[in-house]
Amino acid sequence: MSTLDRPYHHGDLRAALLDAADALLDEGGDGAVSLREAARRAGVSPTAAYRHFADKTALLAALAARHFAQFGQALGGRSFDAMGPAYVRFALERPGRFRLMFGPLLRAAQTDPALQAASAAAFQALRQAAPDEASALRAWAMVHGLAHLLLDGALPGSNDPDAVLARVLPG
Amino acid sequence: MSTLDRPYHHGDLRAALLDAADALLDEGGDGAVSLREAARRAGVSPTAAYRHFADKTALLAALAARHFAQFGQALGGRSFDAMGPAYVRFALERPGRFRLMFGPLLRAAQTDPALQAASAAAFQALRQAAPDEASALRAWAMVHGLAHLLLDGALPGSNDPDAVLARVLPG
Repeated sequence: MSTLDRPYHHGDLRAALLDAADALLDEGGDGAVSLREAARRAGVSPTAAYRHFADKTALLAALAARHFAQFGQALGGRSFDAMGPAYVRFALERPGRFRLMFGPLLRAAQTDPALQAASAAAFQALRQAAPDEASALRAWAMVHGLAHLLLDGALPGSNDPDAVLARVLPG
Repeated sequence: MSTLDRPYHHGDLRAALLDAADALLDEGGDGAVSLREAARRAGVSPTAAYRHFADKTALLAALAARHFAQFGQALGGRSFDAMGPAYVRFALERPGRFRLMFGPLLRAAQTDPALQAASAAAFQALRQAAPDEASALRAWAMVHGLAHLLLDGALPGSNDPDAVLARVLPG
């Protein structure tokens, strides 16, 4: 252990590194996340951080798994119609998390079992509420596209989320 | 004119700069586009390039206006049902152009009249084919989301465009 390392109880450092990485993500997007900077913010050496995450991909996968759990909570217990606005609002409130969860950076981590389990659990509510698989995929694509168009300010005219959601997903 | 400047006929340098910027976009995404590098590829000095584009935003706006014209051609003359797959295929064939056209970088250029006219013309076909504005927006959001999910490899299971399109947008 380097002299700069803060003392952590067993397991707490992993959570502290994830919290630090989340802050980096919310501040600067997924390009701003690095294991080295997360370690610095948690007050430990890079070597201590590497004991918990083999590389940046492992860190991002663990981060996204946490986000999918939050996402599942945001969607869960809602009617099919109420899931769409909840999906879009989740994306608008935490753009960095949304872009990481569905973005190209996570491709390298797609076989991570914890990430797969977390994303499958998050989408179970959507799957169960939809009449069939194709309808679930269409609904997902629509709210995903709406989230991107609103995040990127790409709609002609108003990009006010409330106004757009009321028009596109009434009821 | 600097000694490194290639001789161009009046108006041709503008097109040559846009061609060079398009190549940069296709190679490295919108982060790879710069007026300086486009000038270098066109064989002229940055000063010569600045005579055509005040800054990078002006270059990106002119580039996106060209893309919206291509995009309008890709959608035009199709039935409403056939527009969805055409939209998704345009995105998958030229991801850099798609991400520029609808991405956050273009926000600064949203009041550019040529860009506004080009994007309005491109969407006119979609608007005319849809039964009403809200349906047009829902259809747009769905194919936009599908394009992003496929581009980012975010769908669980197969991300093969043909298979996914056949399931989600049959007919």
